[in-house]
This record gives sequence, C-alpha cells and structure tokens, in this order.
Amino acid sequence: MSYKERLAGIRQQMKEQGVSAYIIPSADPHISEYLPDRYKCIYFASGFTGSAGTLVITEDFAGLWTDARYFVQAEEQLAGSGFELVKLQVQHAPEYIGWLAERLDKGAVVAYDAKLISVGLAQLLEQQLAPLGIELATDRDYLDPIWEGRPELPTAPAYLIGEEITGKATTAKLEDLRAALKKYRADYHLISSLDDMAWLFNMRGSDVKCNPVVLSFALISQDNTILFIDQVKLNEADKKQLMADGVELQPYEMVERVLAELPAGSSIFIDPKRNCYALYKQLPKGVRVIQDTNPTTFFKAVKNEVEVKNTRDAMVKDGVALTRFFKWLEENVANGGITEMSVADKVRDFRAEQEGFVGESFDTIAGYKAHGALPHYKATPESDVELKADGLFLLDSGGQYRTGTTDITRVVSLGNLTEEEKIDYTLVLKGMIDGATARFPKGTRGYQIDAITRKPLWDYARNYGHGTGHGVGFFLNVHEGPHVFNPTPTPVDIELGMITSVEPGIYRPEQYGIRIENLVLTIPDETNDFGEFYTFEHLTVALIDTTPVKKELLEERQIKWLNSYNQMVVDRVGPHLNEDELNWLKEKAKAI
Amino acid sequence: MSYKERLAGIRQQMKEQGVSAYIIPSADPHISEYLPDRYKCIYFASGFTGSAGTLVITEDFAGLWTDARYFVQAEEQLAGSGFELVKLQVQHAPEYIGWLAERLDKGAVVAYDAKLISVGLAQLLEQQLAPLGIELATDRDYLDPIWEGRPELPTAPAYLIGEEITGKATTAKLEDLRAALKKYRADYHLISSLDDMAWLFNMRGSDVKCNPVVLSFALISQDNTILFIDQVKLNEADKKQLMADGVELQPYEMVERVLAELPAGSSIFIDPKRNCYALYKQLPKGVRVIQDTNPTTFFKAVKNEVEVKNTRDAMVKDGVALTRFFKWLEENVANGGITEMSVADKVRDFRAEQEGFVGESFDTIAGYKAHGALPHYKATPESDVELKADGLFLLDSGGQYRTGTTDITRVVSLGNLTEEEKIDYTLVLKGMIDGATARFPKGTRGYQIDAITRKPLWDYARNYGHGTGHGVGFFLNVHEGPHVFNPTPTPVDIELGMITSVEPGIYRPEQYGIRIENLVLTIPDETNDFGEFYTFEHLTVALIDTTPVKKELLEERQIKWLNSYNQMVVDRVGPHLNEDELNWLKEKAKAI
Repeated sequence: MSYKERLAGIRQQMKEQGVSAYIIPSADPHISEYLPDRYKCIYFASGFTGSAGTLVITEDFAGLWTDARYFVQAEEQLAGSGFELVKLQVQHAPEYIGWLAERLDKGAVVAYDAKLISVGLAQLLEQQLAPLGIELATDRDYLDPIWEGRPELPTAPAYLIGEEITGKATTAKLEDLRAALKKYRADYHLISSLDDMAWLFNMRGSDVKCNPVVLSFALISQDNTILFIDQVKLNEADKKQLMADGVELQPYEMVERVLAELPAGSSIFIDPKRNCYALYKQLPKGVRVIQDTNPTTFFKAVKNEVEVKNTRDAMVKDGVALTRFFKWLEENVANGGITEMSVADKVRDFRAEQEGFVGESFDTIAGYKAHGALPHYKATPESDVELKADGLFLLDSGGQYRTGTTDITRVVSLGNLTEEEKIDYTLVLKGMIDGATARFPKGTRGYQIDAITRKPLWDYARNYGHGTGHGVGFFLNVHEGPHVFNPTPTPVDIELGMITSVEPGIYRPEQYGIRIENLVLTIPDETNDFGEFYTFEHLTVALIDTTPVKKELLEERQIKWLNSYNQMVVDRVGPHLNEDELNWLKEKAKAI
Repeated sequence: MSYKERLAGIRQQMKEQGVSAYIIPSADPHISEYLPDRYKCIYFASGFTGSAGTLVITEDFAGLWTDARYFVQAEEQLAGSGFELVKLQVQHAPEYIGWLAERLDKGAVVAYDAKLISVGLAQLLEQQLAPLGIELATDRDYLDPIWEGRPELPTAPAYLIGEEITGKATTAKLEDLRAALKKYRADYHLISSLDDMAWLFNMRGSDVKCNPVVLSFALISQDNTILFIDQVKLNEADKKQLMADGVELQPYEMVERVLAELPAGSSIFIDPKRNCYALYKQLPKGVRVIQDTNPTTFFKAVKNEVEVKNTRDAMVKDGVALTRFFKWLEENVANGGITEMSVADKVRDFRAEQEGFVGESFDTIAGYKAHGALPHYKATPESDVELKADGLFLLDSGGQYRTGTTDITRVVSLGNLTEEEKIDYTLVLKGMIDGATARFPKGTRGYQIDAITRKPLWDYARNYGHGTGHGVGFFLNVHEGPHVFNPTPTPVDIELGMITSVEPGIYRPEQYGIRIENLVLTIPDETNDFGEFYTFEHLTVALIDTTPVKKELLEERQIKWLNSYNQMVVDRVGPHLNEDELNWLKEKAKAI
C-alpha cells in the first residue's frame, strides 16, 4: 500500500465522519520520544523516520511540521508521499495549531487519537480552537483500519538493577515521591512516562530501541503502589523484590479501568506533558486533577553520588572506545572501503569491547562531508558513501552501559580542509567552550546557557537550528527532561547534579556539518555576597581534534582550556590503552 | 491612623467575613505600573513607596513580596508597620501564591479586589488554589472603608498630538487594529491599558505622574470605536477631531454597563495582562472571550520612522542637558552644599531648558555612595546627603519630551576610587557593551540578550537582582511592553524598531552601587545563509565616564567601542554647547 493510498484511506474516513483536519503526532500512550514499532504512525503514514514531527491532514493539504534538524531528510523522505514539509520556526512548537486556526471555519471538526496526544497538548488545542467555534473529536484512530499487520506491543524481558548501580532503593524513592505528593495534597499520582518508571522502580528493559525502558504505568497513593506491566516480562526473583518493596503488580491494560474507578472527591496528580489525554478522559467527574511536572522527573534529573561516580566510569570506557576508533579510522581511511555504515558498526564494536556495554543510546550519526550537514542523518544503503582522506567527518554516537549513558559528537579532519571549514570548526569549538565552562548563579535556566553558547557564532553571523543541549539519563534515555539548553523559554532551573549536553554546530547544506558535543555535570562554584554560583564539570573524556583549529580565533582562556582538556583525556583514558594507542593519543593531544 | 491600625482594620473585616488571606497588588483598574493617588493602596496600607510589590495579609502574618531592587528600601519603610519583607526570587513573579498554597487548608477563603487584579492573575489564582479546595472571594475592597479622605480620580486635561510627532494618524492605527481583530475573529476588543490608548488615539495627558497618559477605556468593533473618558479633560477641537476619526465619546464609568450589555454569541478580545478581572466579570455568559496580548501593545513597541527620528532628536537634547549637569557637578561639588535632592532639581532644570521638555519620565534616582546601592532610591529629606569630592555617584534620570522619552543612568567618579570600585565599574561597562552591541538572529528574545549582558559579570562571580532592560515608549511610559530584557522566560521576539534599555549593575550594600544604562534601537544587520541578523543602534548620546575604567579588563573591541561612543557624543552634542562646555566635553571624551 503506497503512502498516497494510505493518505487517501485517512481522508476517506475524515470525509465519512465530516472531519476537516486530522492530527498525527509523534507519540505513544506514554508520550515517548522513541516509539515502539506499533506507534511509528508518522513513518507508517508518510515514510518520514525523524524522531520529531507532526502530520496534519486536511481535505486539500497534507503536511509534516518538523524542525531544522530534519529539513533535508524530510524533503527526501516525503517525496511522492503526498505530504509536504512545513518548516517549524521553533523546535517542538505546535505551530500547526495557528495554521489550522487561520484556515478552519466555525463548526469545523479537528480530530486526533487521544492515546497519542498529551493532556497539555489536548488542552492547548481546546484553548486555541474552541474560542473560534472549532470542534475537537478526540477518539479517532484513522490508522488502525488501514494498517495491515500493525505490530503488536513488545514483550521484551525487564530486570531490576541494584543499589550499587542506582545509589538509591525503590523504597527510598517512593518515600520521597510520597512526601512530594503530600505537598500537592494529591491522593493519587499517575505516571505514564517510561523513564520515570524505570528510575522509580530501578527497572530496565528493552521494549524500545536504544532506551532501556519497559512499557508500564504506575498509580501511587500514600499507602499503595500499583505497577501496570505485562508480567511475563519479569522473572520471579524481581517480582518478589517488587512485592517486597510494596509494589502491587497488575496487567498493563488494567490502568484504564482502575483510573475509571477512582473515588469521587479524591484528587490525582497528573503531569500534563507526560500522560496521554486518553487516560485523563478515564477519570470520573468528581476527581480533582492537580497538574504539574512529575516529581520523579526532577528527582531523576539530579544524579546522586553513586550515579555520578558510575557515569564517570562509563565515560572513561567510552573514551577508550572512541580513541581506538579514531586511531583505526585515521590509519585505515586511505586504504578505502570504509563507509558511513561500516563506521557505525565499527564504533559499536569498539564500545561492545567495554565491560558493562548494553547497547547504543541512539542510532549513530556518521556523516561524511555533505551528510554531516544533516544533524540527525542516519546512513542507509542508498545514501551510504565511502570516506576518503579528505574533508570533515562528523560522528555523533553514544552507548548504554550498566554504569551510565553516553552521548558524544566529534568532528575530525580527514585532510585538505578549506579556510571556511577551519573557521567554522573553531567558532563551534568557541561556543562549546563558552557554554560548557560558564559560571552562572543558582536559578539560571537552560535558555541562558544556550545564549552564552551561541554568542561566539552570532558574533560571526552564524547559527544552528537545533537546541544547544539536552538532559541525559543515567543508564536511561539519552534525552531526558525536565531541563534543556535551547532558546525556548523553558522555566526549569539548572540544578546541581544535572547532566546535560552542550553541542553547538554549524551546518552548510551540500558541503559539510560541524558539531562538537560534551556532556557536563552541574557542580558548585564560588559563593559570595552576590549569591551561589554554579559551573560545569566535563564528564565526556574524548580527544577534541586540534588540527582544524585556527588558534588566532580563540581567546587565551579558550586555548588554555582546550589544551588542559586534551591532557585530561590522556591522563584518564591513557591507563586503559596499549603503548601504541597511548603514543597516538599523546601525539594528538599535544598542546596548540 | 497608624499602619498597625490600618492592618488591624483590614484583619477586622477579614475576620467578620471569614477570610483567611487578603491580597493587595500594586495596580489599578488599568493594571498600570505607575498609579494615580487613589490607587496607591500598598503605600496606604504599609507605607512602602516602591513601584512593584504585593501585600498578603493573613490572621497571623502580613508580608510585602517585592524584588531585590527594593529590599533595603522596604526594610526601612516597613519598620513598625506590622508588615514584613518577603524577598522575591524572581522579579514580578506571584510567589505568594505558592506561599498561600502551602499554608491554607481546604475550605479557606482568599479575597481580593477584582478591580486591582488582572484577568491573568485571577485565572492563575484560580488554577493554583482551587484544586486545593481553597475558595476565592473576588469583590472585596477592605481599604475603602478605612481610607479616610481617599483621593478622587484625577481630572487633568488631555490633548491630541499631531502626525508630525506620532508619524501615524489614529484612523490608520484603527485600521491596523481592526485587521488584527479580524484574524482573531473578535467582534469586540476592550483596551484598558493607558499607554495603548494614548498611542492609539494620539492622545496625551497628565493623570499619572511621569506617564503622559489619560484615564480611559476603549471598546473597538469593526464599525464602531468607543472611548470611555471624563470629557471635561478634552477641549472642543480635540473632541471634534476624535469624532471626525469615528471615535464615539462616553463617560469613563460607562464601560462596565456597556460590557454587561454585549450580545450573547458575540466574541471579545481581551488581553489578560492588561485588563482587570472586575471588567471581565461584567461580560454576559454567552460572550466568547479570546485572550492574547493587545495588538496595540505590539504596534506601539515598534517605532515608526517619524518616532525614531524624533527620539534621536530628544536624545541629543537630553545629552546636552546631562553634559551641562555633569560639568556643573564636577566644578561645584568641592564647594559643598550639593545634596542628592538638590541634584535631582538641578538635572530637571537643565532638561527644562530644552525645547519640548514636558517633565520627568520617572522620579530621579540620585544615589551617592551607599545610596547608589539602592537601585530605586529616591532621596527624602530624612535620607538626603551631601555630595563630596570622593567616591561614586549614580544618577538614573529621564525626561518626557514632545519628541520622545529618555531614560539614562551614568555613574561618575567624584574622586579617590577604590580598586574594587574600578573593577566593578569596568565589569558593568563590559556587560553593557556586550549586551548593547550584540548581533543576534531574528527571533531572539530578551532573555537571551539578558544572558549575554550578564556573562562578563558572572565570569567574575558578580550579578545584579534586577532585569537588564525594559521597553521604552515614545513620549509615553518609560516602562513599556511587551518585550523586556530579563531572565524571565518572556516569549516575545525582539523586533526591528523596538526601543529597549540595557542597564546592568553591581550593588554593594552600605558601600556603593554602579549601573550604566543606554537606550538602544533594534536595527537590521547582516543577512546570509544562516538567516537574518539584527543588532542595536545606541540612541542615548551622553558621555560615559572613563576615569574609573580599568583598561586591562576590557577586550580590544570593547575599548574601541567606548572610544568611538564618546567621540560620537562629542560630534552630536557638541554643536549645541558653548565653547567652554565643548572643551570640557572633549577633554572628558579623550580616547583611553
């Protein structure tokens, strides 16, 4: 069935039900970013494989709203699908709502599947469209009827991990959570977000690619904890452990009914961004809803000492793997036969040699020359190209280790760089250094670090279309809330113990792309009459290539930082290398 | 009647009506920042004279929530009033709501006067307190019964100004407004914000100190414009002009009734931040409310060419006045007898010599030494001190001219500066230069410019507790929305033609305060593959004292900027000075 036929099938149902517009977001009933195959709805309908976007279908238009990271990829993948690319001004902003508001008349019906729409988005649609007299039909799944062989939900095994890894027992985490719920005076608390559940129950699995999470829901009250999960996933020992921790196990699908039976007059705490509207609609009229960000989302973001210690360990392992990879690449690229796809395999192999490696934390982005200009490029057999001893090569990759999650981007010169490539590389490096070495007062938000990171690029009239950084989980999702370093006004303070990426870039379509990414940990700095100041510790331990650097563009403090950083890499990765590897690294790390 | 007695009088009424908490904001039915005497409720109840704050009274606590600008002042003014200072973490944030939520039990009643609470704030209180089972009584004025001789509303004359000053006729402005309302599909539009009305009707007055506005409301539909105003304020010619522009005049108090009689099924556009809840409550059930920022607020913020040309002219006049003032100060301070209060008069006198001067744009802040550490200090007979040829003197003042509004802060050395004073002065200057010379992409918001301005201070672990800048009106309010340069996540883009202040500072209580403020205009910069870039033009034309500057702390580009800026002052202000004044200025402006 072609994409055009699928689109026709959706429009047929819209017509039959008098629906003017149908919205297909990139989400599942857990409002996840990475989706199980069953919920890859945008891919099914349009062929677009990006991790962020929204399809909006009307009688005479079908569009994909997505951000600059995916412009080129979307143009290619949507060709012939009947869908057109609509470029988002602001990453993740629901700009299609304004588009609909301008075009639809009073009485028009906008439909979506409430299982795929967050409570907050449903409320936003209501706020913005209802005043215009536009109606919303919230229970329409137009894909299921035309989706032959739609995949079932995954049933991968789940397992518990110990306190030596997590640093905190589930019972203690539940105590903290209940204390928070008391403050909100909430009788019940529903959790749908998979990484919150994995953190709370010290549970991991592989239901979703690259994210070690388990499909489940949880309902917590002061004296009861229900985990809704397909129990075949858990072995007996883990089930016993959970029950010993006071966790009652119920089937995954039971959550709807349990919510529908909550007593009138009771109150429930629900995160509007991390629960789907379908579950919200199950709540009886008399139940008072308290909306705010999940307490577990904040708890999880602030890593404890054990998690930090373990993460540092994982970072060294990752640094060893990357050192070996880049040495191998440098020594073999001239021989030919190395392509973007083979590189991705090779990087995974080097990581797999490391103890505790579980898998990749996301699909490796290996972009040679022009492909580096696609921030979320994934090589396919059709796009795959051979690397040569010429130009820039961008590698953005990461690993899931039992002791932590890594995410790192490096760009290396394979030879013969142009002046512009060197300038761009140096400006990106300046931005990364300024952002990741910033000193800032307690209470500073991600959008402020974002601006400081971009300034060196803005000074030269350059910029990038994606965020500067994202929170990173501990042996969990590589993208983790609630904090983010980007230009959007996200009112979340940067707390001590948070792990975030700093990854500015410069992209020249058809030519090359540059991005340099380190993960940083928020740590205390000076405290004085002006208050408490924080700064960052660099967790990532991997060489930054100095060959493309134009030293005259760097300030003294930036040169100092670069040299000491590369020396730190030698000191910490070196002990795990053989003599040959160590010499190579030392040569590369020479001060400029 | 003492403040303690007033507080007792309020608590007495709370007790009688079973009210647990009473909220008194700093506002009037127009949600103004600067208030007519009748609505100086916080001053009446507590004695605090600051322009921002909220009183919250419970049975056993009475507090003033205000921001860092007012901490010292509030401590002094609240002494013995029965009110305690509660320090805001974030300027203007309604942090008292969380405070109430934590303390009040289910069933408790929170009361306020809906005439003084914006629609948005009323909705926020509802959202945050109602889920906790707390009730809201929105029609309680506990001040009127105890306020003997409460001032009546002002009746100062109003007048229209011509297109040679405003650059756009009222009829043309109404056309733009109606086009915007069409997009929102709004049948009616209520405007309560006084500066929006002054802009829309090209009308000025003096109902409020320092703000040339006129107490009025407006109701606009596609075919009708009603201006609610006390008609004794307008002369016959202006009344005729307004009627000729299709404006119907009705008595000020009529607005409530007209709103109450709007036809069911119709829709009205209301800015939740710029209208009081009392008027909102007048709307009949069947009227659909569309909430967003007033279109006029955006129109007004983007100055047209005539307004910009006129403002540049006003800035030169202001520069001439300030040059003469600082020369006078330097030559006379040693003779003694010059105090903070006499300085304020002197500055006004120099401005008054300038053609088109209407009055001050805000109360002059003249702070010598320790008084400079109070960002919004206003000298009183009790606090007034004599200036000596020693230490730092801060002057923050501004004028209303018929050709524009000015707001400028300068700090000058009167002699014998400490090393720390010089370092702090230089860091503030670095911040002002970096913020006010920034290049940034279209779509950048104020919070990003704020971060860039603070970075040089953060690098040295210094900071300031107020915003970096505010929008400035054209012969209108010195504080003007919708944009602002501060750390709060205000999602308003910086548009071409906007005028904003850049005014970082460093304050050392008991010692001294430093703030350097210029007004800047957003102008186009380079456009390339990375998009459109903007930058700022400096509108303020007044010498920046170089004697406290530690050159070694400035970067090359900052030194270049400082020297060329001071030379520009000589070039533009010089022609209006006598020889003696010009020589003094040239000497002062010598390149460092």
